[in-house]
Amino acid sequence: MWLQKKIIIGAKTRGFHLVTSEVLRQIPELRNFKVGLGHFFLQHTSASLAINENADPSVRVDMESGFNNLVPENQHYFTHTQEGPDDMPAHLKAVIIGTDLTIPLAQGRLQLGTWQGIYFCEHRDYAGERNIIVTLTGE
Amino acid sequence: MWLQKKIIIGAKTRGFHLVTSEVLRQIPELRNFKVGLGHFFLQHTSASLAINENADPSVRVDMESGFNNLVPENQHYFTHTQEGPDDMPAHLKAVIIGTDLTIPLAQGRLQLGTWQGIYFCEHRDYAGERNIIVTLTGE
Amino acid sequence: MWLQKKIIIGAKTRGFHLVTSEVLRQIPELRNFKVGLGHFFLQHTSASLAINENADPSVRVDMESGFNNLVPENQHYFTHTQEGPDDMPAHLKAVIIGTDLTIPLAQGRLQLGTWQGIYFCEHRDYAGERNIIVTLTGE
Repeated sequence: MWLQKKIIIGAKTRGFHLVTSEVLRQIPELRNFKVGLGHFFLQHTSASLAINENADPSVRVDMESGFNNLVPENQHYFTHTQEGPDDMPAHLKAVIIGTDLTIPLAQGRLQLGTWQGIYFCEHRDYAGERNIIVTLTGE
Repeated sequence: MWLQKKIIIGAKTRGFHLVTSEVLRQIPELRNFKVGLGHFFLQHTSASLAINENADPSVRVDMESGFNNLVPENQHYFTHTQEGPDDMPAHLKAVIIGTDLTIPLAQGRLQLGTWQGIYFCEHRDYAGERNIIVTLTGE
Repeated sequence: MWLQKKIIIGAKTRGFHLVTSEVLRQIPELRNFKVGLGHFFLQHTSASLAINENADPSVRVDMESGFNNLVPENQHYFTHTQEGPDDMPAHLKAVIIGTDLTIPLAQGRLQLGTWQGIYFCEHRDYAGERNIIVTLTGE
């Protein structure tokens, strides 16, 4: 059984956002899968997807600080600068974090751990909505 | 053909551990797959899974040093500090490294390269056992 | 429907290389998949695969600079040094970036975003050709 569809992540401020509900709301077909895999593919190069703590919002705040510290803007060696100081760091963060996730499915649900949620990570200062291609496979 | 099961990684010290054997021992069903994919999903937010060198143990020692240098503890900008100085760096490392792996299967075996093994990366100072949801699909 | 084959990435200089065409040329079978997933698994521990901008080559130049800055060579704490100063940083970069990609398939094509391409990231100063196990599944 295969299901593939494009879903939309509404425009977000720069930072790390918990989007588990926003994603699940758009894939009600998930309930038909007794076992399988869900694949989430962000079709962009300056944002990323990750899995991390779904509870304390301070984790998401520190993620943004931590990644800004890891990949600072305005480095002297950057040559790709014409799209603004946030652009090349955004590409680097997207490569570090990654733009796709695969999550096991069982009994019509994502098999996330108790403390896990899906993070959408917006690395640009100003960005519009973002597309994710969701592919569910299983039986 | 689908197989999904929870396996356990025994409690480990902080650091990078080669767990290929510990994982394979728990999925004897692998031998039934002539071709397919194996997906390994860690249900935690302060540990991670990676693939790297299975030979010289000094690589794993330097991985731990390298990631500690990349994501130092006690940064002034951390606000999520009530779970100890190792907690927020652990979340950051988990997002950088990632918590799932997909590995091709053929002739009943993982198709790892000659020098590749599965790393379980424990980022907390003290942690118990960890769960991995293994999903094998193929024919 | 399952297809699995080994493809070769020709020897590359150290750095980030756009290899979408080099990969696609070797998997003409892709055209038979109406929907599915494509999995790309690099069988090496000092190179990696990523997805990022397919347009301005300056992005790839800055990726190499950015990762060299993130993971510098000759750190005093490195103990795995007998394979040269570029070796341990190469392992670290491979763990940070990752060695496998999963990309959705539809109508016989990879469902990459408009600006996305496949990056092969060679982290060694001198390396030969590299193997990727490609697994396509779908219908």
